[in-house]
Amino acid sequence: MRKFGIIGVGHVGATVAYTLVCKGIADELILIDNNEGKATAEQLDLQDAQARLDTRTIIKTQDYSELEDTDVLFVTSGNIHALDNVSGNRWAEFEYTREIVKDIAPKIKASGFDGVLIDTMNPCDAITHYLQRETGLSRQQCFGTGTFLDTARMQKVVSDVFDVDPKNVTGYVYGEHGESQFSAWSTVQVNGLDILDLAHEQDLDLSELEDKARHGGWAVHSGKGYTSYAIATCAVKLSEAVLSDAKLTCPCSSYSEKYGTYVGQPSIVGKNGIESVTELPLPDDEEAKFKHSADTIKEKFATL
Amino acid sequence: MRKFGIIGVGHVGATVAYTLVCKGIADELILIDNNEGKATAEQLDLQDAQARLDTRTIIKTQDYSELEDTDVLFVTSGNIHALDNVSGNRWAEFEYTREIVKDIAPKIKASGFDGVLIDTMNPCDAITHYLQRETGLSRQQCFGTGTFLDTARMQKVVSDVFDVDPKNVTGYVYGEHGESQFSAWSTVQVNGLDILDLAHEQDLDLSELEDKARHGGWAVHSGKGYTSYAIATCAVKLSEAVLSDAKLTCPCSSYSEKYGTYVGQPSIVGKNGIESVTELPLPDDEEAKFKHSADTIKEKFATL
Amino acid sequence: MRKFGIIGVGHVGATVAYTLVCKGIADELILIDNNEGKATAEQLDLQDAQARLDTRTIIKTQDYSELEDTDVLFVTSGNIHALDNVSGNRWAEFEYTREIVKDIAPKIKASGFDGVLIDTMNPCDAITHYLQRETGLSRQQCFGTGTFLDTARMQKVVSDVFDVDPKNVTGYVYGEHGESQFSAWSTVQVNGLDILDLAHEQDLDLSELEDKARHGGWAVHSGKGYTSYAIATCAVKLSEAVLSDAKLTCPCSSYSEKYGTYVGQPSIVGKNGIESVTELPLPDDEEAKFKHSADTIKEKFATL
Amino acid sequence: MRKFGIIGVGHVGATVAYTLVCKGIADELILIDNNEGKATAEQLDLQDAQARLDTRTIIKTQDYSELEDTDVLFVTSGNIHALDNVSGNRWAEFEYTREIVKDIAPKIKASGFDGVLIDTMNPCDAITHYLQRETGLSRQQCFGTGTFLDTARMQKVVSDVFDVDPKNVTGYVYGEHGESQFSAWSTVQVNGLDILDLAHEQDLDLSELEDKARHGGWAVHSGKGYTSYAIATCAVKLSEAVLSDAKLTCPCSSYSEKYGTYVGQPSIVGKNGIESVTELPLPDDEEAKFKHSADTIKEKFATL
Repeated sequence: MRKFGIIGVGHVGATVAYTLVCKGIADELILIDNNEGKATAEQLDLQDAQARLDTRTIIKTQDYSELEDTDVLFVTSGNIHALDNVSGNRWAEFEYTREIVKDIAPKIKASGFDGVLIDTMNPCDAITHYLQRETGLSRQQCFGTGTFLDTARMQKVVSDVFDVDPKNVTGYVYGEHGESQFSAWSTVQVNGLDILDLAHEQDLDLSELEDKARHGGWAVHSGKGYTSYAIATCAVKLSEAVLSDAKLTCPCSSYSEKYGTYVGQPSIVGKNGIESVTELPLPDDEEAKFKHSADTIKEKFATL
Repeated sequence: MRKFGIIGVGHVGATVAYTLVCKGIADELILIDNNEGKATAEQLDLQDAQARLDTRTIIKTQDYSELEDTDVLFVTSGNIHALDNVSGNRWAEFEYTREIVKDIAPKIKASGFDGVLIDTMNPCDAITHYLQRETGLSRQQCFGTGTFLDTARMQKVVSDVFDVDPKNVTGYVYGEHGESQFSAWSTVQVNGLDILDLAHEQDLDLSELEDKARHGGWAVHSGKGYTSYAIATCAVKLSEAVLSDAKLTCPCSSYSEKYGTYVGQPSIVGKNGIESVTELPLPDDEEAKFKHSADTIKEKFATL
Repeated sequence: MRKFGIIGVGHVGATVAYTLVCKGIADELILIDNNEGKATAEQLDLQDAQARLDTRTIIKTQDYSELEDTDVLFVTSGNIHALDNVSGNRWAEFEYTREIVKDIAPKIKASGFDGVLIDTMNPCDAITHYLQRETGLSRQQCFGTGTFLDTARMQKVVSDVFDVDPKNVTGYVYGEHGESQFSAWSTVQVNGLDILDLAHEQDLDLSELEDKARHGGWAVHSGKGYTSYAIATCAVKLSEAVLSDAKLTCPCSSYSEKYGTYVGQPSIVGKNGIESVTELPLPDDEEAKFKHSADTIKEKFATL
Repeated sequence: MRKFGIIGVGHVGATVAYTLVCKGIADELILIDNNEGKATAEQLDLQDAQARLDTRTIIKTQDYSELEDTDVLFVTSGNIHALDNVSGNRWAEFEYTREIVKDIAPKIKASGFDGVLIDTMNPCDAITHYLQRETGLSRQQCFGTGTFLDTARMQKVVSDVFDVDPKNVTGYVYGEHGESQFSAWSTVQVNGLDILDLAHEQDLDLSELEDKARHGGWAVHSGKGYTSYAIATCAVKLSEAVLSDAKLTCPCSSYSEKYGTYVGQPSIVGKNGIESVTELPLPDDEEAKFKHSADTIKEKFATL
């Protein structure tokens, strides 16, 4: 049986829950939130949907002891209002989310949880690192969605220009799930053609596309006050790769031995979480950007 | 190709959109909202998810002319804050939603829309009736989710008592999607056994269950400020019955010739919308409640 | 993780495997067949599909030791050619399938399998009983698809007459998955109306419908040489009810304390397999048919 | 509404039908076969499954006039026994399938069909060309699955070596869906790394992998007598790209202006069928193989 837990049922957590239920992915689901009334309300809303769904999910709330045999735990806490006046800077959430970690990490540890933890909190890379340290989970078991979402946004932005399916666009966004991230254009292909060649031929400004991908989240945020669907879709996809031991390449926030920090990079996701990290031979300028972004994360993390 | 439209991308409309996209139900989707920024943000959030989904949906916004060849149009507008101080009374939204109808009905009409319209606005029965009249759509083509959701809640509440799957509970909630609704216990079976017999044997207070079903929405509302997942699941299920011409029995808000109003009752949903209404032989007390509920809707409707 | 096993990858077993893979239901799947080449070919064909599916399933073959931690095991062996000259009589497969049981039961036992076993072999009721006895599994853990398929056929046949969705038809076929089965019309409703009343009003010959449901399998068999899609769909649905502990009512072949045999009857399916049996108050003539059908199964079983 | 037709309900056609039904992709489905009993049996078997599926599909048989408003038509006819003694040579089916085209093409034409036709017959490239010519459909509208399947097999074979998800393997098999095909290794990446580099580092024999991919179908054929699941999955995926106008890159059999024949090559699939062909800059040896394979197809086609 597939058992999932979600800590933090705000917009992201609730959408993850809905996705797991409406697609019949979860057999059992535990919802935990500081606000018990919110967790209960989401449980009820999802249970009210059950009579209209072909699949069934057992939904429980607020009980950390249920995490003991949970396969995948999403940590999706956050305080989106922390971002209201600081558009473009996810570090503004750090103060809030590190308090969350201090609260939940001991409880996760005490529960005996030994599955895979997928973190969507912000600033994703630093807080995932902190969460990993505080829970005592291995670096394999604990990773963040990181640039999995930013890469999806890059694919979307590029696919718009070339009028193709986003899935025709391969390649990765590296680095921080934040300002210092970058699209590693050397890795990007459109319909199997190198985007660097295409950009040259068509006189295309890739930095403009990169900006659009980087700030895609803020465009959504400014219109609806938060982001939910794309991030939840990414988180659920990662969890499916874990449960089926897919060994799927996903650019997400995993620990880099080279740079000594969690950072967005192509990683192989399977039943143990991060099965391995793929080190692509990046050109010097991209490697420099990668190092810079990793350093940015490390610096902030050191302030903890 | 399956083409859907949604007018009003608040919590319900956005969740309907996400469901259509994440389950690959919609090939094309038009989002329309008074707040253009909200419609665009939802479009972007859903598009950002596309690279992580196996299916593809073309998503457009704000263009009524796209409704001309739309198969199913959801109208999910509303102002949930209208309910903040009037828990238990969906009529509080009437003032707000009838203004919406005055705004959108002529635009729907002008678009040449000739598909099936599914309404989730509140007060559902009266506003669906009004919307039908103002759009000039036939009574077949235009119906409301009505007690499809309340019936799901009744199934959930009953299934909890008997520790079974909500789908093991058959039968219908009739009447207004509001206070005057009632669970027609004469129609309800649990695992194939009449609930009236079971209640008698087990000394079970059915009126308590009925209250719980009736007020299930408010329990959700009080915890999360709105309801979204169950209502969206119901709306999408109705749309699927339309597209596949399923002729599926659904207790939803359709026009009753007998009572001269839209009201929640078992209806057969197919490609034309409401293919027919099923008149079950209700016992006198239930028929009286049904008439009372229909009258309640009519009276309010007459105030328009 | 959801782990499934299939013993016997003929038409039914292979279709079950394909369904589990193409719908992303299984995380891991073990295929076992007397004909190793067949098992390997199905494994390869399913693996070749993986690059085109959004989900992933690990597929292994021929290793009974993998059953130790398998959640649901389908036994779908059979020799359809045993039926070629005896249309209408599934007992013709008994000689063949009991040899299969003698072969596989000790291997299942030795594997330490302790999940739920769903049997589709024929004659379903007797061979499921035999399989349960020989594997030493509990009567809860081991059940047959039985009249779950015949009930689906009854729903289809009735829905055709009334031009509605088969899901609008509720009620059960009881008894043997074979000639002595019967549609318990007292339990059947169409759109919530008793079919006995409808039949009376519309001068409808229910025995004709019953025959059509009973012989639906042979109609398929005569055209394609075997049946596969409906039976596989039924088997998979039962397994989903197990994995999600759905406590879903399913008319399948479970052990009847009253009649001392496995026989088709409404049963509640959950994580333990058969959670309980629902004893509906059948009218005398139907109860007599039920007893007769159960006795038929018992007699044949006694010949073992 | 999504309307599909299938001509030829053998193993491939029936599996396509089952996939469309069990995943709820098709709203309406027309099955056509020379053997009316086979078509009817598959219809019945699929209809018997409907009561156990959450979605609904209207299934009709044998009526060419239904093709007039069909969105996607699969032609999946064939005579697998034509291959029994000629392992490795799909041209053996040509004599059989060209007779089929002579039979069905005028009927398709007469029906007024104007959707997209996806062909799985063998020898795929030549017979698709012939079918296109005889039906009078445009070269956009009519294409074959071609190397979409061979590419999936190459992805599988490569993913086995590197122990990753087949979806981590990008790149294409070009040419004939037959012996003269080749894996264009210059286009293939594993986890974003060029396979040519990996093969060099790891002393890997790519020609061995190529052979395994090329002959994957025969491995399946030898064990089960036909292939069905992977080819059906490929065909359905192509149809979904058409219905959602996905503009998805798929290496399938489309018309090459350069070589004057249908041949497997990366193509963009959308609502019009083949939206465009992607001409990747292949190295000289691969381009030579591509030309050779295209010439092989042209020669055989000329024998018609």
